[in-house]
Amino acid sequence: MLTLDKVYQAAFVLRDVARKTDLIQARNMCTDCELYLKTENLQVTGSFKVRGAYYKISQLSEAERAKGIVACSAGNHAQGVALAAQKMGIKSVICMPDGAPISKVEATKAFGAEACLVPGAYDDAYQKALSLCEETGATLIHPFDDEEVIAGQGTIGLEILEQIGDADAVVVPVGGGGLVAGVAYAIKHLRPDIKVYGVQAERAASMAQSLKLGKQITLDSVSTFADGIAVKHPGDNTFKLIGEYVDDVVTVTEDEIATAILTLMEKQKLVAEGAGAVSVAAVMFDKVPVKGKKVVCVVSGGNIDVNILSRVVTRGLVTTGRNATLQIALEDKPGQLLGVSSIISRCGGNVVSVHHERSDANMAVASCFLKIGMETRDFEQIEEIRQELTKAGFKIVS
Amino acid sequence: MLTLDKVYQAAFVLRDVARKTDLIQARNMCTDCELYLKTENLQVTGSFKVRGAYYKISQLSEAERAKGIVACSAGNHAQGVALAAQKMGIKSVICMPDGAPISKVEATKAFGAEACLVPGAYDDAYQKALSLCEETGATLIHPFDDEEVIAGQGTIGLEILEQIGDADAVVVPVGGGGLVAGVAYAIKHLRPDIKVYGVQAERAASMAQSLKLGKQITLDSVSTFADGIAVKHPGDNTFKLIGEYVDDVVTVTEDEIATAILTLMEKQKLVAEGAGAVSVAAVMFDKVPVKGKKVVCVVSGGNIDVNILSRVVTRGLVTTGRNATLQIALEDKPGQLLGVSSIISRCGGNVVSVHHERSDANMAVASCFLKIGMETRDFEQIEEIRQELTKAGFKIVS
Repeated sequence: MLTLDKVYQAAFVLRDVARKTDLIQARNMCTDCELYLKTENLQVTGSFKVRGAYYKISQLSEAERAKGIVACSAGNHAQGVALAAQKMGIKSVICMPDGAPISKVEATKAFGAEACLVPGAYDDAYQKALSLCEETGATLIHPFDDEEVIAGQGTIGLEILEQIGDADAVVVPVGGGGLVAGVAYAIKHLRPDIKVYGVQAERAASMAQSLKLGKQITLDSVSTFADGIAVKHPGDNTFKLIGEYVDDVVTVTEDEIATAILTLMEKQKLVAEGAGAVSVAAVMFDKVPVKGKKVVCVVSGGNIDVNILSRVVTRGLVTTGRNATLQIALEDKPGQLLGVSSIISRCGGNVVSVHHERSDANMAVASCFLKIGMETRDFEQIEEIRQELTKAGFKIVS
Repeated sequence: MLTLDKVYQAAFVLRDVARKTDLIQARNMCTDCELYLKTENLQVTGSFKVRGAYYKISQLSEAERAKGIVACSAGNHAQGVALAAQKMGIKSVICMPDGAPISKVEATKAFGAEACLVPGAYDDAYQKALSLCEETGATLIHPFDDEEVIAGQGTIGLEILEQIGDADAVVVPVGGGGLVAGVAYAIKHLRPDIKVYGVQAERAASMAQSLKLGKQITLDSVSTFADGIAVKHPGDNTFKLIGEYVDDVVTVTEDEIATAILTLMEKQKLVAEGAGAVSVAAVMFDKVPVKGKKVVCVVSGGNIDVNILSRVVTRGLVTTGRNATLQIALEDKPGQLLGVSSIISRCGGNVVSVHHERSDANMAVASCFLKIGMETRDFEQIEEIRQELTKAGFKIVS
């Protein structure tokens, strides 16, 4: 059974393993609340997962440890378990779907784990993990539905209470629910007046929907770039604990998550993964009632693929008016490109790409088509460029 | 005169203003040294500058404060001074060249400063600041060549000694030299056995060259994307102090800085600006003798323009094999694009852009030209795609 004792014991066990991550006030991100970030993206392995994994493993008997451990994950849990096992000097095998990003596989191996690549999807890898445990007697370390794992994650709740005495609310990302269950359990036992909210990605809202229906549901598919919280089915323990201790579980959209990631980078100099930024997205987009309050967002991880990060940044530049693409219909005669470029230049735009196409079947004969990408300052500047081009007789198609 | 007393006094004055930023061990960035990051990019205003500015202003007399302060900067110093003045409730005017990024102007205004946009470059804005001081009796807050500013930056040295007792070396970014002078002064007085190294961008190496020549030189131009340390002429005080207390000042290239920025994002989840990452670049690229040592890199700031960050990320993806562009000469007949795409897909590449062009004057008649951008896993995968395409008879131009 989960007890507050276990959470305190976990904090003790973790004292030399997990970083007590900084709580940072984000002064320039929320105008109508006092926002603090619990920066678990700066935790060792780049996410909170090492807390639960290490505490769980520390509670195994000598005999169990000798047989090693197995986990199934292509993400943060894999690295958390691998590091925890390495610290304790026991053997670990991590089953991963064979399409897992090579960076994650390598990171897991770097912590001394054996990576077992299983053809298929997550569920196939999970089956493989179960059969490995059966064959070898190794212990499966579940990513969330385990009371000792939950107790380990709960140490974040203790740290928050120590770092800020008078918070009004704590906002926590939710996938399987281990993190929010642990944090809520710890906080509600010590300070029941503090609100605890969970946040899921709208496109993977298994826990939010289960709570609404009063029973655990299974989603057919989950598709969000917050892959760290893309869980189809809530855990039994976590579902019960969240129902009891969490005030509400809300959802955020993909675009809201992307905006939160970009804002964390720009304003707080922090890299968060999608799963780690949903808490911040919920506050930024008023999904939780924290107006005028002191609110702590747990930024649970920072392990985002750089290709995805690059797309988030690019998308963010577009949605904030700092990057724009114009399509212009041109007469096919000399000097047209010069005309367009000089107007853009005069308005202070910085051209970064040009695509000039004559043979588009949709265009009239003897006219052509210019697609021009620019770095811009803001929407005002884009509008100015559009107006100046139109005034000069250029036809902006889009 | 600079004294250790002043540095300690600055630490006391700053206790409620500046964050005592975290010292984070970067376990996965340096294989042959033990690397720690002093995360001043997580300081309020996103850089260390508030330390020196606030301490300097705190030492002004009542009469001086009543007349207000003036500074010249389009960057971190502007925000540091603005916040410091706001905290002390005095009037500040920040002179900036009128081409300053709107985000920096807005950030400075947000801290309650008056932004004075001056036509021209930095030197013009500086002249304007001087004449404002003459007219109004306001005090100029120099960005680096001031002993109280230097004492304020020196508090970082005290914090490092408190956070890690047994460092062997500390590596510090150098622009005008205020930061490294303060840090070195504090450290060498308390722990003369710790090495202190300064790092400049190769393309703005005014201090490194001045030290080599034994006299202060002025560079004609500085051009680096580490704009926070693009200083043409070292300060008088800083030049003297660095000569006395800093063991060496080394330089890093633009590509080295970009790699350091990307690595800090990927491995440490930290956003650093170019100026803030030069210290890390120096360790990563063996510019300082720290093999087998415990070394602290000061990551001095994180205020990087997102458009530039986006380019750094994109460039980093290319240099690490996670993004590639192929140019392929095709015969102009149906099914060619299909052939290319199916090979790329089979090898696991993810196509992100396609440019198909028939009318390139350099191509033979009846042939065409395909430029295809892909997300890839590593160089090995790119090579595999190249080989498979070649095997299938496609001619890769570049």
